[in-house]
Amino acid sequence: MSGAVGTGAAPAPVLEPLAGGVTTTPGIRAAGIAAGLKPSGKPDLALVAAEEPVAAAAVQTRNQVFAAPVAVTRRHVADGRARAVLLNAGSANACTGEEGLRTAEDSAAAVAAALGCAADDVLLCSTGVIGVPIPREPFLAAIPRAVAALRDDAAAGDAAARAIMTTDTVPKKAAVRVSDASGSCVVGGMAKGAGMLAPELATMLCVLTTDAPLAGAALQQALQQACATTFGRISVDGCMSTNDAVIVLATGTAAQPPSPASVQAGLEAVCARLAEAMVRDGEGASRLVRLRVCGARSEDDALGLARAVADSVLVRTAIAGGDPNWGRILAAMGASPVRFDPSRVAVRVGDVTVCRGGVVAPFDPAAAAAALAPGDVDVTVDVGAGDAEATMLFSDLTHEYVTINAEYTT
Amino acid sequence: MSGAVGTGAAPAPVLEPLAGGVTTTPGIRAAGIAAGLKPSGKPDLALVAAEEPVAAAAVQTRNQVFAAPVAVTRRHVADGRARAVLLNAGSANACTGEEGLRTAEDSAAAVAAALGCAADDVLLCSTGVIGVPIPREPFLAAIPRAVAALRDDAAAGDAAARAIMTTDTVPKKAAVRVSDASGSCVVGGMAKGAGMLAPELATMLCVLTTDAPLAGAALQQALQQACATTFGRISVDGCMSTNDAVIVLATGTAAQPPSPASVQAGLEAVCARLAEAMVRDGEGASRLVRLRVCGARSEDDALGLARAVADSVLVRTAIAGGDPNWGRILAAMGASPVRFDPSRVAVRVGDVTVCRGGVVAPFDPAAAAAALAPGDVDVTVDVGAGDAEATMLFSDLTHEYVTINAEYTT
Repeated sequence: MSGAVGTGAAPAPVLEPLAGGVTTTPGIRAAGIAAGLKPSGKPDLALVAAEEPVAAAAVQTRNQVFAAPVAVTRRHVADGRARAVLLNAGSANACTGEEGLRTAEDSAAAVAAALGCAADDVLLCSTGVIGVPIPREPFLAAIPRAVAALRDDAAAGDAAARAIMTTDTVPKKAAVRVSDASGSCVVGGMAKGAGMLAPELATMLCVLTTDAPLAGAALQQALQQACATTFGRISVDGCMSTNDAVIVLATGTAAQPPSPASVQAGLEAVCARLAEAMVRDGEGASRLVRLRVCGARSEDDALGLARAVADSVLVRTAIAGGDPNWGRILAAMGASPVRFDPSRVAVRVGDVTVCRGGVVAPFDPAAAAAALAPGDVDVTVDVGAGDAEATMLFSDLTHEYVTINAEYTT
Repeated sequence: MSGAVGTGAAPAPVLEPLAGGVTTTPGIRAAGIAAGLKPSGKPDLALVAAEEPVAAAAVQTRNQVFAAPVAVTRRHVADGRARAVLLNAGSANACTGEEGLRTAEDSAAAVAAALGCAADDVLLCSTGVIGVPIPREPFLAAIPRAVAALRDDAAAGDAAARAIMTTDTVPKKAAVRVSDASGSCVVGGMAKGAGMLAPELATMLCVLTTDAPLAGAALQQALQQACATTFGRISVDGCMSTNDAVIVLATGTAAQPPSPASVQAGLEAVCARLAEAMVRDGEGASRLVRLRVCGARSEDDALGLARAVADSVLVRTAIAGGDPNWGRILAAMGASPVRFDPSRVAVRVGDVTVCRGGVVAPFDPAAAAAALAPGDVDVTVDVGAGDAEATMLFSDLTHEYVTINAEYTT
């Protein structure tokens, strides 16, 4: 998951895992409450807030059908500053027309009024079924309660992470301390994912917080880079959604911050942990597949091949069946635009080589089955053309995935 | 499924469905026998032969990982002539190296020896698991038996169609008589499909026969056009395989043939029937979805949007659940490169409008559920931008699909 940082002369930063999530960063408060948007009555409204407007950046879906909160956030983050992020589950507020947009704008204004900041210092994220109008009254009415519930402790960060869950089965949080010769900072984060995860972000929401002093274009670039090597290298179903967003709030209060490169390493580390948690909790997933494509002419080539394999429903169903059907891996790569020589390809599942020189290698079926047992599965594809490599994480495609997605709105 | 033919001044040809398949064409014999390649012992070797070398053309997979029979056929059809097509199930003979290639070449030579023609007048198709060596001895030993079994009756055509089945549950055959003011000809065909069907041909094999006098570049072009508007507009799982091939043998014996445009209409009609049969028999499919995207600026736009929807596993699982989750349709279109205005989109399932102006339309859930019941489902997306349209056929993604694909080799 690395390769993007530490490529300069600077020594690699030390990354120390911390407990908690968004509130692990000093000066960040969070809340998670039930606003009545989920029919289950479970928590569905999260708020993450700094003590004043701070540096902010966002990476959002490139889907041309984008949700109202995506439109509002795009406008509000344009100045590179924000105080708070309001997130809701229970409605994506996508394909909801003018009314959805007005409700989104009014929700930002409501947060601003309660916090005492400008409406354009409030960013928005929504997740849920597309096309379902967001229930305006309970949504807006709950906002003052969410502001009143803001706390800076780990429990508050956990409550916020739980409030954005949809088909997620576990809340997703991560935090690290990043240290180098210059100093240290904290990066915290929370995310929801589970379904519709694609290389280009998909029905995933993520809020990162840090006390590092990155701002403006530098913060935006660090965030984009961190996303590219983490959320950009996972796949659950290859679908890009209408609501995807990764937002970072950077307070800049760290007394002795590390270098910008180290901050980015910290952002990347938190994103990597959240990305892995998303795939592990992918809808119906029984296996987390770590696919390493090596021996490629370039990292782009390696990534293109890895993506073709990770998005293949035939590969993903074969893996759900514990089946070392390496021919489907070659077929998926062959259908991609990346050129390679099939007769130089080797495929390993765990330590078991199942294909060498593009043809079947004699292997022990029991050993291959063990390497493909539910849990973590390592697959390595060596294309025998060079030194570049890339790794993607993806989940298998199970009956349970079909059940979840066949019954999601009904 | 049309629009490609009859665009000139010529009157549309009359297409009369006929019984049978490849042997409905005069002068074509076929056979289907058991060579012992399928563990079940079911028929697995098919042969289709003309009485002498005739005009031939092929459309093959563009996957850079291609099977040995694809390589051999490419060479043998280069001169635009062939006498016979040998097809086997039970092994794809893909990713099988030099040995696989030698066996494929030897099988062509064996057919040629038994028929009394040149080896390069024999074309090859294989289907089955990738990477499994084709059992050389039983395969080659069965070929004289297949030649001896050649008959020109409907039963022989049916036997050939059955011998190429893998996960297909029914044999796929079609035939038509094409007539216009100039004369008439017959087009017959057989295919296997069921899984790995993608817009660009996938684990599908198809042999067409006709007594029309088309040859050379004209035959190749007619075949490509017929494929583009039929096999090119279906999707079962969006995966392009290593073995896909559509081959036509054109004897040219029709006494008074119709115009070339009419012949192409006949090829297209047979391909359309076989394509629909493939989707209907798609692995685990409970629904055949006929998706019409209309109101597009161009046919390419309409097709691009239709393809994005047809390939979306989220759309396909929602339909498997009978769920009018139109938001996933918009999200899939929005992630495609085709530009459109989401606020002008309308979506209908059957006659029930579920989305209008890009937002939910009030609809009767019971009527929508009825329109999405198992069987044939019509979905119409109007993008409100122009007059062009395109139709794609796809299957829903069910539990049964996962079961079939998780257990295919084991």
